[in-house]
Amino acid sequence: MTAILVSEVGPRDGLQSIDRVMPLTAKQAWIAAEAASGVREIEVGSFVPPALLPQMADTAALVEFALTIPGLNVVALVPNAKGAALAAAAGVHAMSVPFSMSETHSLRNVRKDHPVMLAEIAEIARIAKAAGSHFAVGLSTAFGCTIEGAVPEAQVVRLAVAAAEAGAQEFSLSDTTGYADPAQVRRLIRAVRAEVGDLLTTLHLHNTRGLGLANALAGLDEGITTLDASLGGLGGCPFAPGASGNLVTEDLVLMLNAMGYDTGIDLAALLEVRKIVAEALPDEPLYGFTPDAGPMLDYAERAAR
Amino acid sequence: MTAILVSEVGPRDGLQSIDRVMPLTAKQAWIAAEAASGVREIEVGSFVPPALLPQMADTAALVEFALTIPGLNVVALVPNAKGAALAAAAGVHAMSVPFSMSETHSLRNVRKDHPVMLAEIAEIARIAKAAGSHFAVGLSTAFGCTIEGAVPEAQVVRLAVAAAEAGAQEFSLSDTTGYADPAQVRRLIRAVRAEVGDLLTTLHLHNTRGLGLANALAGLDEGITTLDASLGGLGGCPFAPGASGNLVTEDLVLMLNAMGYDTGIDLAALLEVRKIVAEALPDEPLYGFTPDAGPMLDYAERAAR
Repeated sequence: MTAILVSEVGPRDGLQSIDRVMPLTAKQAWIAAEAASGVREIEVGSFVPPALLPQMADTAALVEFALTIPGLNVVALVPNAKGAALAAAAGVHAMSVPFSMSETHSLRNVRKDHPVMLAEIAEIARIAKAAGSHFAVGLSTAFGCTIEGAVPEAQVVRLAVAAAEAGAQEFSLSDTTGYADPAQVRRLIRAVRAEVGDLLTTLHLHNTRGLGLANALAGLDEGITTLDASLGGLGGCPFAPGASGNLVTEDLVLMLNAMGYDTGIDLAALLEVRKIVAEALPDEPLYGFTPDAGPMLDYAERAAR
Repeated sequence: MTAILVSEVGPRDGLQSIDRVMPLTAKQAWIAAEAASGVREIEVGSFVPPALLPQMADTAALVEFALTIPGLNVVALVPNAKGAALAAAAGVHAMSVPFSMSETHSLRNVRKDHPVMLAEIAEIARIAKAAGSHFAVGLSTAFGCTIEGAVPEAQVVRLAVAAAEAGAQEFSLSDTTGYADPAQVRRLIRAVRAEVGDLLTTLHLHNTRGLGLANALAGLDEGITTLDASLGGLGGCPFAPGASGNLVTEDLVLMLNAMGYDTGIDLAALLEVRKIVAEALPDEPLYGFTPDAGPMLDYAERAAR
């Protein structure tokens, strides 16, 4: 069985998108329960100024907690070198930096054009290396931008190469705006892989137009080994107008397990984790089909056919 | 561009699943508007006893209306030879017969075991041939049954071969229960094609667990050329407990058009058709992501990248 890493980004991407601040104890319960269900990687938060995103103010404490969970890969988002220094001090296993392929989106989101972002990435790479942290770059708006429109594939490839030269150890392609279709997913993976090879491991998909799982399938066919997802589909990108809805972890795990991929995740246990999130965020809609429909046939039974 | 036929089954599969009877004029408006948006095939109803499904009582009148629309392939479901005779009299272009791969489901649904159903299929084939109608068989519960559980792939292949020998001119694989996953879709298509070849053209998918479009993509990769779908995801199978939610036509067309398949369908015009259905069925939830999120980038712009 091929192993696929499901990387839970809800505590970061989900919680940063909503106004309500989830208490630290609830976040800890969520992370502990999801790790216990078999999820092996969680992006627990973001090292951004608390004044900007109060929802992420407890990220250092969360990292400290998550590091006590055996076998869990603890990731935090860092928008810049300052955040990277905080992440290094907290001892994260990996830092992830969003690098917007749309320069307009980059300017709007972090007030940096591409050359400035590349310099920042080089600086973050130095900090991560010194701290012994893994360093991944998320190529956001890679499939199009709500502000700029189409983002040329050649531009994504060029910027990925530049980021690799600046020290990025791993890449994800992010469909920040829900514009990706499966043909485009395949094309862009091939184009980027032609230049940076296996450094491209990950897809970060949204389900804005319901194509999330189809795009995931396209990525799996191209050899993608890590898929980001968010419990209950919480989140999206708050700075990309019209974007909504991460890939739902529960539905993704259902599909992967049914297909015979080794995720290591117990779907029934994962579904129980929703209760923690629903209780802590009573006003927040949680998405997904599997929670209502229930699992399919027993997987052992399926495999026996 | 590869042409893909999107076959709208909402007026049959959608409307038979709900209690409210849609007035004939509303059905006509729906069919006319959807054909005008570019949909080239519509299953307009079912020739079943009106006492059993009053929602389908006007099928002959609908066929008569639909036959006046140039270029539209007019399909009706027939559960048995009696229905086929009515369909032949109405002059349908094609009849479709559901043939449940789960014998328990077949007995529960139409009170016929497999040998009796095969005899019925042979009789329907004679009626269709005499009338000059095309005759398709839908291999329902092909991916599993909520009553029986797993349905062995060898059984699906064997029954497809028997139905072909009985005169079936075309096959669809139906995920009546929302159990299919993309790996299974690929496997089953290959297995059935190995015996009946290109007679297998179609997938009829449900979105019960959100895997509908991923399963459609798996089918496209295997050379499937027709995909059933229902406007707003109306319907499902009323006799399969727990089954719900057809593939949403709007989301399917969005995906196909974005991928560069030639559907001939204008998505903006298709989205307008929802208003007709929503007005006629004010209490019925309509599904789909595209209606809320809107189309993606302009397709011409996408193609230019």
